[in-house]
Amino acid sequence: MDYLTARRQTAVRDLKAAGHDAFLVTSPTNVRYLSGFGGEAAYLALTPKKTVLVTDARFADQAAEECPDIEVVIRPHTQTLDQAAAATLGRLKAKVIGLEGSTTLGTAESLAGALPAATFTAVHGRVETLRAVKDAGELKRIRHAVAVAERAFRSFVPHARGADSEKDLHDAMESFLRRAGAVSGSFPPITAVGERAARPHAVPDPGVRLASAGLLLIDWGADCGYVSDLTRTVKTPFGPARKPKGSPDFDRVYALVCAAQDAAAAAVRAGVAAKDVDAAARRVFAAAGVEGKFTHGLGHGIGLDVHELPRVRADSTCTLEAGNVITLEPALYFPGWGGVRIEDDYLVTADGCERLSTLPRDPELLL
Amino acid sequence: MDYLTARRQTAVRDLKAAGHDAFLVTSPTNVRYLSGFGGEAAYLALTPKKTVLVTDARFADQAAEECPDIEVVIRPHTQTLDQAAAATLGRLKAKVIGLEGSTTLGTAESLAGALPAATFTAVHGRVETLRAVKDAGELKRIRHAVAVAERAFRSFVPHARGADSEKDLHDAMESFLRRAGAVSGSFPPITAVGERAARPHAVPDPGVRLASAGLLLIDWGADCGYVSDLTRTVKTPFGPARKPKGSPDFDRVYALVCAAQDAAAAAVRAGVAAKDVDAAARRVFAAAGVEGKFTHGLGHGIGLDVHELPRVRADSTCTLEAGNVITLEPALYFPGWGGVRIEDDYLVTADGCERLSTLPRDPELLL
Repeated sequence: MDYLTARRQTAVRDLKAAGHDAFLVTSPTNVRYLSGFGGEAAYLALTPKKTVLVTDARFADQAAEECPDIEVVIRPHTQTLDQAAAATLGRLKAKVIGLEGSTTLGTAESLAGALPAATFTAVHGRVETLRAVKDAGELKRIRHAVAVAERAFRSFVPHARGADSEKDLHDAMESFLRRAGAVSGSFPPITAVGERAARPHAVPDPGVRLASAGLLLIDWGADCGYVSDLTRTVKTPFGPARKPKGSPDFDRVYALVCAAQDAAAAAVRAGVAAKDVDAAARRVFAAAGVEGKFTHGLGHGIGLDVHELPRVRADSTCTLEAGNVITLEPALYFPGWGGVRIEDDYLVTADGCERLSTLPRDPELLL
Repeated sequence: MDYLTARRQTAVRDLKAAGHDAFLVTSPTNVRYLSGFGGEAAYLALTPKKTVLVTDARFADQAAEECPDIEVVIRPHTQTLDQAAAATLGRLKAKVIGLEGSTTLGTAESLAGALPAATFTAVHGRVETLRAVKDAGELKRIRHAVAVAERAFRSFVPHARGADSEKDLHDAMESFLRRAGAVSGSFPPITAVGERAARPHAVPDPGVRLASAGLLLIDWGADCGYVSDLTRTVKTPFGPARKPKGSPDFDRVYALVCAAQDAAAAAVRAGVAAKDVDAAARRVFAAAGVEGKFTHGLGHGIGLDVHELPRVRADSTCTLEAGNVITLEPALYFPGWGGVRIEDDYLVTADGCERLSTLPRDPELLL
């Protein structure tokens, strides 16, 4: 049995137990995971015996090529995707239908309107939970996405110059990622100069130049089908000759963030609660009296999406499993000064973890 | 009153009539339209008297800067966005709450779980309907996005060469868009060579070179906050010396697509049913016996998103209004040969329309 068929069988394994006779997959990423179809605007209807992909004429050739084993319904342009999915569910004689938690209220209402005799209930995380544990093929593709991101970084560093704006740096990284083999960045790269690095999700500013400050935070990843997600914070040669009084010391902040990442990685192992890994990093910061400067969760799973299960945060209810691939991205932010974040990608194993990224954690990388 | 406050007042105008005492905006684009907040992971809670933006610490500075007039709640990292939104709605004493149709079932269930005494109902298209009619400021930004896309195209054409793969052409267009002033492409540019142009949403193939066929279809747009969306199909100098028997004639197909776009544009006017504009294009194809080769809708609104209201399709229930900005993108696809699509952006006016894009429709543009 091929791996796509196996995934679909697992996805419908608990269908009867949940009281459903069909399951409608509406998340584009979940459709892709279960069917191999890489286009947009498609739903996948699953019963214990049948699989039907519903899409439109724009994707007819692609669906035929990518899903040779699946029945494909091409809706006419006079029918919406919701209407076509309802017609397919009706044809499959589905009466109690599971909908993904990510389905919109609008779609749920359209389906219910078109199939008044059917009952719909939400199923949370069924496919997302499967996706959290990577198989050998997926792991190979994530390793590739990590290698592509690292290759892009090695082009990016010597290319950067003081006159570049954050926007120039951002566009350059995107370009290097594609040149290195990515379809695109796995998200818009973050290239935050100086105090702007205190903003964890800074949008690149065409008016802020690298030469204006002594540090640069770069958060980037490659989308090669599967994704990677890395962050480095580096010193630039443009720091102020004299630091303003009360500024944090870059080297001390940097060392703390590294120590927090090491403590977290040491806590990773199959069977461990993800929130305990978050806590391990936070303890390092608490011991130094700076826990209030780490204002977000420690990490997240990566795979087809750049944010997937398991959640690695204080409020996570996930338990780590062998085959999870997660980021660990501790950070310290000091508004008005800047921030340091370091992020690597790790494979969870039975007895620990393997760091998939190989870039050194060296703040002097730039110049 | 500033335009953001005015938009929010319009958005809650019918709240009481709908029986709601609060409206929760969960769509990132709608949050941006109503609040000016450009970050991610934020909801906007609205009552007739109060507006509260709920987000997390990553976006604290950005929210303070972009939304100086709005109360901002920064959720702790131990709380989900849904939980924080429920707490805010509880504090606002909301009992009957409208949720956007694009809200997920998962979020709706989380909110209902956290506020068991409240009632939630879906509100469809409330903000989307407002967004469909552009004000002068929005129109200026769309004109800019059109100009940026056209500038990118003028760089792209002489840069293209026979050895470029579809992926090279795709990456080059993305790069030219950014260089011309875009944040990014408004979607991944489509650069389809030869028979691959018969696939309306072809994914760029690193193995297919421009020199392999006689036509190239390029569908691209600029995201400058507001977006543009254009398509051109051009002859390359690499066509076969002798056409296979039964091939459509490029010039005849091209002329038909132009005629369909002209017929559609002539039908555009405030007060006209959008489906009648779609029908005007389709009639041109029907008269030539090729209506079956036009397999998708004629167009769509553009604005903050690249697909928004009004829908310009056979099954659309929209009536055009002055201030709508729409694409008209008739096409003919011949599997095994290729396709021709031409797309321009139009402003709907009281007595007709204004074509916002100025690129010539010249299939000989390349070389």
